[in-house]
Amino acid sequence: MPDTPDLADPRAVRAAIRSGRFRGFTNLVAPGYLQGNLMILPQAYAEDFAAYCRLNQAALPVIGRSMPGATSLPDLAEDLDLRTDIGQYTVFRDGVPAICDSVTSLWRDDFVAFVIGCSFSFESLLQSAGISLRHLREGNVSAMYVTCLQTLPSGPFQGPLVVSMRALTPGDAIRATLISAQHRNFHGAPIHIGLPHLIGIADLAQSYGGHGLTSLRADELPVFWPCGATAQLAAVAAKLPICITHHKAHMLVTDRLIQEMI
Amino acid sequence: MPDTPDLADPRAVRAAIRSGRFRGFTNLVAPGYLQGNLMILPQAYAEDFAAYCRLNQAALPVIGRSMPGATSLPDLAEDLDLRTDIGQYTVFRDGVPAICDSVTSLWRDDFVAFVIGCSFSFESLLQSAGISLRHLREGNVSAMYVTCLQTLPSGPFQGPLVVSMRALTPGDAIRATLISAQHRNFHGAPIHIGLPHLIGIADLAQSYGGHGLTSLRADELPVFWPCGATAQLAAVAAKLPICITHHKAHMLVTDRLIQEMI
Repeated sequence: MPDTPDLADPRAVRAAIRSGRFRGFTNLVAPGYLQGNLMILPQAYAEDFAAYCRLNQAALPVIGRSMPGATSLPDLAEDLDLRTDIGQYTVFRDGVPAICDSVTSLWRDDFVAFVIGCSFSFESLLQSAGISLRHLREGNVSAMYVTCLQTLPSGPFQGPLVVSMRALTPGDAIRATLISAQHRNFHGAPIHIGLPHLIGIADLAQSYGGHGLTSLRADELPVFWPCGATAQLAAVAAKLPICITHHKAHMLVTDRLIQEMI
Repeated sequence: MPDTPDLADPRAVRAAIRSGRFRGFTNLVAPGYLQGNLMILPQAYAEDFAAYCRLNQAALPVIGRSMPGATSLPDLAEDLDLRTDIGQYTVFRDGVPAICDSVTSLWRDDFVAFVIGCSFSFESLLQSAGISLRHLREGNVSAMYVTCLQTLPSGPFQGPLVVSMRALTPGDAIRATLISAQHRNFHGAPIHIGLPHLIGIADLAQSYGGHGLTSLRADELPVFWPCGATAQLAAVAAKLPICITHHKAHMLVTDRLIQEMI
């Protein structure tokens, strides 16, 4: 294995994460490959959660689901180990979060993993179309916000819609809308543009988790897409005894080409 | 012929215009039927103008072109008389405008008519999709603006891009973008959204021609589409000895269904 992992290759990215050599955000690795949000929960909650995703499909497009207890998901990546291949996990116990690098010691035979499409996947498509993503140019990620829009509930799962925001010039906002609309496996079209207070965002500087590019230039509009982090808030609201997710911006990197999903 | 024309029927609308019984704006008549901008000019300028339209296709999608001297355009409407079937014409002589109800007395054997797609055609599609068009609810038309964006020149034709504006909620702005993008015969997607000063519009209240809905509510964004009126400014700039256009919001109403053009 080389000293410096090839971060353009998804298999090498996962290997580097597994061995502790890469723990960064995944938005700039393996361009062209599908990335996903991860939600691992006990089988007893799996059907309610699957229905929650179906009811809120723009935010929660399911692109993979494991068999109970399985630690792999070969449809998405042949060598994938769900317990070790995410740079940082958040473990929620009764809604209380803790961050860790591996969940091997916590694994249970009744765990079911859901992989949910992520807007990181369309960022490379936008860039290919000549759209300038300033947050990437500045080495940042897109900011997330909790909105006042409510999801449709299912069983114990409910809560607000979370969105991701990109600062775009108006012309790029229009083209990004048209391009992302073609990709329902990773959130499709924006849900809002331009007037964030209308969806309950009083201050762009106050992002969910406090990270991401939050400032606008005078020639930019804020454009908002439904975000897979919606599932984390729903899991917290559900007060599941345990669930495990990726920690924000540390996504599951798959071997599936974005172009396969179109 | 009935006393009250059936304004849902394009043939009845044209007959009512021809006989002087209807002189209103056409944005609410014959819903579902294609409407067009009209540009009639001497044959000597026709090829330069046709090239100008091709170069600036978003603003100037040609949906019909007459043979020199012909007063009809049967591809668009079997009984159409180009000299009488527009509610108000603007005649430009050396760039100087005059408004009239008929151009029969001015007709020349070398006139060529171009019909150019109009955004009125997609307004009914937007409404069918549940998008609320406040300017129509208020009995108004969309406002037009002259931008600082320049068209690509052809022969004597050149000048700024003219746009039409609709005030839309952000969610409707996104859906209107996606729907209109499918209709390149009438301007396609918006060219701008939200920050009009970036395209040279300092004050929304100062619309081109001074008509149309120009005020925004707090929950609305201004959304701008390329507009066929771009051709009028180019004809004025070209100082043609004569050209004839529809007068604003008095469009050519055709028998072609919008759905045929998709």
